[in-house]
Amino acid sequence: MYGPTHWPIQSTVRGPNYCAHGATVLQLDWRPPANGDRELGLLLARLEDDPDDPIGAQVAEANATALSRLLAARPLLVDVRPAREVVPDLGERLLLHAGPPIDWRDMCGPMRGGAIGAMLFEGWAADVDQAQALADSGAVRFAPCHHLGAAGPMVGLLSPSMPVVVVQNDDRPGNRAFATLNEGLGKVLRFGAYDPSVLERLRWMASVLGPSLSTALQKSGPIDLKVLIGQALQMGDECHNRNVAATSLLARLLAPALVRHVEPASAAAVLDFLLDNNHFFLNVSMAACKAGLDAAHGIAGSTMVTAMARNGVEFGIRISGAANTWFTAPSTVPDGLYFAGYGPEHANPDLGDSAITETAGIGGFAMAAAPAIVRFVGGDAADAARYTREMGRITLARNADYALPSLGFAGTPTGIDVRRVVESGTAPVINTGIAHRQPGIGQIGAGIARAPLACFNDGLRALAARLGIS
Amino acid sequence: MYGPTHWPIQSTVRGPNYCAHGATVLQLDWRPPANGDRELGLLLARLEDDPDDPIGAQVAEANATALSRLLAARPLLVDVRPAREVVPDLGERLLLHAGPPIDWRDMCGPMRGGAIGAMLFEGWAADVDQAQALADSGAVRFAPCHHLGAAGPMVGLLSPSMPVVVVQNDDRPGNRAFATLNEGLGKVLRFGAYDPSVLERLRWMASVLGPSLSTALQKSGPIDLKVLIGQALQMGDECHNRNVAATSLLARLLAPALVRHVEPASAAAVLDFLLDNNHFFLNVSMAACKAGLDAAHGIAGSTMVTAMARNGVEFGIRISGAANTWFTAPSTVPDGLYFAGYGPEHANPDLGDSAITETAGIGGFAMAAAPAIVRFVGGDAADAARYTREMGRITLARNADYALPSLGFAGTPTGIDVRRVVESGTAPVINTGIAHRQPGIGQIGAGIARAPLACFNDGLRALAARLGIS
Repeated sequence: MYGPTHWPIQSTVRGPNYCAHGATVLQLDWRPPANGDRELGLLLARLEDDPDDPIGAQVAEANATALSRLLAARPLLVDVRPAREVVPDLGERLLLHAGPPIDWRDMCGPMRGGAIGAMLFEGWAADVDQAQALADSGAVRFAPCHHLGAAGPMVGLLSPSMPVVVVQNDDRPGNRAFATLNEGLGKVLRFGAYDPSVLERLRWMASVLGPSLSTALQKSGPIDLKVLIGQALQMGDECHNRNVAATSLLARLLAPALVRHVEPASAAAVLDFLLDNNHFFLNVSMAACKAGLDAAHGIAGSTMVTAMARNGVEFGIRISGAANTWFTAPSTVPDGLYFAGYGPEHANPDLGDSAITETAGIGGFAMAAAPAIVRFVGGDAADAARYTREMGRITLARNADYALPSLGFAGTPTGIDVRRVVESGTAPVINTGIAHRQPGIGQIGAGIARAPLACFNDGLRALAARLGIS
Repeated sequence: MYGPTHWPIQSTVRGPNYCAHGATVLQLDWRPPANGDRELGLLLARLEDDPDDPIGAQVAEANATALSRLLAARPLLVDVRPAREVVPDLGERLLLHAGPPIDWRDMCGPMRGGAIGAMLFEGWAADVDQAQALADSGAVRFAPCHHLGAAGPMVGLLSPSMPVVVVQNDDRPGNRAFATLNEGLGKVLRFGAYDPSVLERLRWMASVLGPSLSTALQKSGPIDLKVLIGQALQMGDECHNRNVAATSLLARLLAPALVRHVEPASAAAVLDFLLDNNHFFLNVSMAACKAGLDAAHGIAGSTMVTAMARNGVEFGIRISGAANTWFTAPSTVPDGLYFAGYGPEHANPDLGDSAITETAGIGGFAMAAAPAIVRFVGGDAADAARYTREMGRITLARNADYALPSLGFAGTPTGIDVRRVVESGTAPVINTGIAHRQPGIGQIGAGIARAPLACFNDGLRALAARLGIS
């Protein structure tokens, strides 16, 4: 009825009654495509790869192009610069935030906290009341990080004076991506905190950390992040919620140039900061993934997802063949492990651009690489491998550059295909930190989130409409 | 017949004929204890744990003591000093080597090369002929590293002027262990090379690397190696043939103090050296393991192995309850993967003290932690897990401080029990580098070695004799 499909044969449905009566029962993990939705089923049939059909041929070719650009991306960490110098169109009085577009008045608590902190950090407001009044007045504008080539963890606040990593995709001239520097854990802006200690750290990051890293990178030359991430995946990281290996490798790579070319007190302070923050690489990983996915974005007919992001209220995806439309649905609270004293009732709904890692095939999609992470997000080592295998059902390819030793060096499942998500009802899995719903308290847990299927159903409809399918 | 035993039930024996005739066949991986050797079988029966028998009770208690000392060991990296300052009884004109005792005239090519290099480095000889003459004359003496609290990789040459890591077991005052600093790959003394580049590097290690690391450690305080190894095992290292995570963590830990307290040119050179040598942590790992096993050595009645070591001619083991006796058998060529242009015909028989890591429960015993290593030593990820599970049959306990995420955080199998090796015929597995049999060529491959069973059979007989069993 719908063209070629891939039915998983693993058993999850139980048939105790037939068994009890002695019948031989073959159990299939089968659901009707698109959960039986006739309209979506018909659209799926028209959008399948088919060399003999103009639309089917276009989709196949567009996906091949998008996938090849993602797999060929060679993200290099080339510099750390103040955002205003490098992020295009980042005018004054513009703040970037995580997830799909959202107005100031609709933001969740932590994002409002982050915005207030950014206004104080920039000196646009002298106190919290002034900052709120400024935002209320509309004198400060907001835009998603994703619209300006950036990706921001948690609330994702990015303001012009903040230093950002500059990642250049060596495979495509002009394809650059950006992310702020990771602040560490505890009271930090990305969880909505803005007390004096937060602002002081941000000033140190702008005046010492950023310039020192920039000098080290200029002297030592660009760092090949594809190689580094590939190595970290063999060292128990999945480069979203576990980054201890990648951070250690990065610190070891930068240390000699820091010592040679940065004055000793600053070099030592930078190395101390890198030593104390096992998540430092997260933001670098996000910029690397963003660069590769931006290269694959905007190919008419492609059903490949090029961004998944959350603003704490809505979850949104972008699709290569659907231009800059966001397909959104309400963001939900992740299923995870909470720090002592906290529970789901304290949690903000899922938040941040860090799901760009899963969109690029690492993070939750590479959990088989990082069995130790289950102590942080819940589950056991077998679950970790199971998530990776499950994501193989909804992706276009395996990325041979990101080999998973525990799965016989198979590559990570890469390139989410909206068709496969809609057809199977298998939602992309995301390893994520959990923020307190009040600003400034910070991380209260970590867990597994699932992307809402509604985003993918809407995206499929929009793709079909663009291709003239009614 | 023999008291409690543990028969593995996994099937490896095939029974095609019975199957072919339609019979129901239950396949058991069964061999008679001690491969049917009646004398060993009777000794095993007498040496089993038994609270109602004086000998059985002594053995049980001695093993509990030995095991608890090994598991309680807290190896701290406290300093790097010239060997003559810290290795007790390291008189002038004494060279230490890997493995059980061996005379100069019986040494394999690489070990003779290493000894010549050490004499040149110390200035005891001006050229190769003088060095050989000196050794022939008996004016230079040789002793195993293991006799002086040290452990040496490959040929294991250790001379008085070389800097050594000093590892203090915080659980037992006075329990210290030592190892040289790892030179990296290529032409290096530990593979028997002694050309000017080798000697120059050794001089730099003595004049810059050692003192710099010492300063950094004095300023930053001791590094807890149990914590570091536990972390590295969650990052794809097994801390014998794969040490990239541990080396990265160590470099990251030492970098701030190197920058603050060592003059910049030396600090940068040291950080460059640590960056270029993913095996740097191996020697530190060996000293940590040696400290813990020395604490467990010398307990009358204990059947726990406290050293496995190879001098390139003989493989030797020491047993806690057998004082300082070495039980030896010929060393064999490991089964492994060779670098291009080399094969088993070029290989030296198994070499080095690095099997101290397996003796302590890491290395080959923790291969489940390091599936990526199979690209280096051969096999696949399932083999890696299988080796770890197999070693569980011949060990006294699991070390909860060294948890293996891929096996549901089970600890590494720890404390080789001579009884279980003899009874099951399961030889300890060792991840090892393979040296060219000619001095100075270096590493030509890596693979898996098995300890010769004869060492364990002889050890069991000696233990029985010490306990008055005839």
